[in-house]
Amino acid sequence: VTRELTVGLDIGGTKTEALIVDRHDQALGHAVQPTITGGTDAMLDAIVETIHAALANSGEDAHHITSVGVGIPGRVLPETGEVQHAVNLGLKSYPLGRRLTERMNAPVFVENDVRVAAIGAYHFVREHEDISSMAYLGVGTGINAGLILDGKVYRGANGMAGEIGHMVVDENGVLCNCGQRGCLETVAGGPGITRQAINAGITDSRTTTHELIEMAQSGDERARLVMKRVMQHLARAVQVLILSYDVEKVMLGGGVTNAGDSFRDLLLAELGEMKQHSDLVRLMIPDHKIEVLPPGFNAGAHGAIRMAQEKAVALKNGAG
Amino acid sequence: VTRELTVGLDIGGTKTEALIVDRHDQALGHAVQPTITGGTDAMLDAIVETIHAALANSGEDAHHITSVGVGIPGRVLPETGEVQHAVNLGLKSYPLGRRLTERMNAPVFVENDVRVAAIGAYHFVREHEDISSMAYLGVGTGINAGLILDGKVYRGANGMAGEIGHMVVDENGVLCNCGQRGCLETVAGGPGITRQAINAGITDSRTTTHELIEMAQSGDERARLVMKRVMQHLARAVQVLILSYDVEKVMLGGGVTNAGDSFRDLLLAELGEMKQHSDLVRLMIPDHKIEVLPPGFNAGAHGAIRMAQEKAVALKNGAG
Repeated sequence: VTRELTVGLDIGGTKTEALIVDRHDQALGHAVQPTITGGTDAMLDAIVETIHAALANSGEDAHHITSVGVGIPGRVLPETGEVQHAVNLGLKSYPLGRRLTERMNAPVFVENDVRVAAIGAYHFVREHEDISSMAYLGVGTGINAGLILDGKVYRGANGMAGEIGHMVVDENGVLCNCGQRGCLETVAGGPGITRQAINAGITDSRTTTHELIEMAQSGDERARLVMKRVMQHLARAVQVLILSYDVEKVMLGGGVTNAGDSFRDLLLAELGEMKQHSDLVRLMIPDHKIEVLPPGFNAGAHGAIRMAQEKAVALKNGAG
Repeated sequence: VTRELTVGLDIGGTKTEALIVDRHDQALGHAVQPTITGGTDAMLDAIVETIHAALANSGEDAHHITSVGVGIPGRVLPETGEVQHAVNLGLKSYPLGRRLTERMNAPVFVENDVRVAAIGAYHFVREHEDISSMAYLGVGTGINAGLILDGKVYRGANGMAGEIGHMVVDENGVLCNCGQRGCLETVAGGPGITRQAINAGITDSRTTTHELIEMAQSGDERARLVMKRVMQHLARAVQVLILSYDVEKVMLGGGVTNAGDSFRDLLLAELGEMKQHSDLVRLMIPDHKIEVLPPGFNAGAHGAIRMAQEKAVALKNGAG
């Protein structure tokens, strides 16, 4: 029996992670390297180099790779693997799928990073709970939702489903780079949280959410107030997801959620306040519907692997 | 060839409409009668009587009815036709599907009224445009969305998908009967609009949206301001639907939209203001994505017929 390796790539604005598994989903190797932006050739070289670093880490050979899954920010045309409008990566339009296929001699499947993380989060939950619908709320620099409905990724007509970071939550709020004022991500995304922390006079930290939560827990009232506003808006976003999609689970992940359980506790406290007044909220958002990804788990890389495995099978069976 | 009749029933809080079509979707007869609440036996008798009035109107015979579709407010278990929590009708739990099947000697298919109206609106649009996804935003006493995704009704895990009327849009707003403050439907639902009109000093009309739009167009500044706030929030709701689901069309219907084109003009004006500032809104919400149902078209009755026809076929083929 030949080795059948699948590579999962999670390409972020600052770093790229490659994970390699065998046909039994056994993790064999892994590498994290900086994402190179500013030129597509250099970026592609760096991505290939990260895959080879993970191969070296696993002791495996590139010609055993049978499929590659990639999660990347921006809009992706999954049929061709073309990446569009990946602003953080400086990509306006780039045929990543085609280029990487040429370099790796294996089928490459590309999808938006949040959607890929949703796949990873979904299978993470399915290890302990039999669900068939989930919203993954990615809270990082931006805020986006990835949806699994009836057991399948839901993309929408233009691959734009789940763009709820641009829901306006504060009409008089700060300008968002989309042109609107007070979008959810200006309040509850990473840079938005940092801005509010600085405005509150907190300059003695890098003000990640994790640090703000620790500061709040150690009695810093300014940190507590900043995090309360953030959590209020994230609680409302969770509610909008459940009202809209009626999913069985909302899973949160992304850099802003790195405090894990402490993050979940604060979020549930806000949802708890909403429930005090409303039967509907109590009915629709029981605590067990809300989970936060363990900080160490790379849902993107795992989701990319799962996507690649499923699409490779579909391709083999002539369905893809 | 025997006649094959389908009945579509739209059961509302005040009136029930029955529509009868043949196998070629030719409308044969029609009746509108008051909905009787306060007792399930009396309600069922009145529903059957409305069907017979439509039969009389068509000159057809009850034993040619091959299926009945029903749209009714509340939560519905479509497998059994049980209706739950239909507050306006005084129903906590009632096996309408079973009871009506006994009375009509034909299979009866029951679904939530907004979801049934969404089916009707979807097929209305498909007469002139080839879409496979749509959100129907029903704006009446309450506000709910019915979703068609990938050509099929999307219900959610508990049949609660699309309950966006309880999205909080004004934290300091009036109390909603769900227990929260400032839900969308307290601002943009029928009774909410009436309340705001009265607060604005408009007591010289029954203050339907239709009349308020006419008053605003004839220069009444109070009416203009009330409608502006309503339309701002409906425009935001349309945006949330498109950000969430990335559907090809948002169709609005329900009592509040009875002014038809005038209603659409005001809504598009608000969306136009949002677009002035935002590329994203321009990209995601082109005017042609937004339609308002013609006031004379009963999407509920037509959707109920379509649902019944499709489910009857599925039943015959053993898939249902």
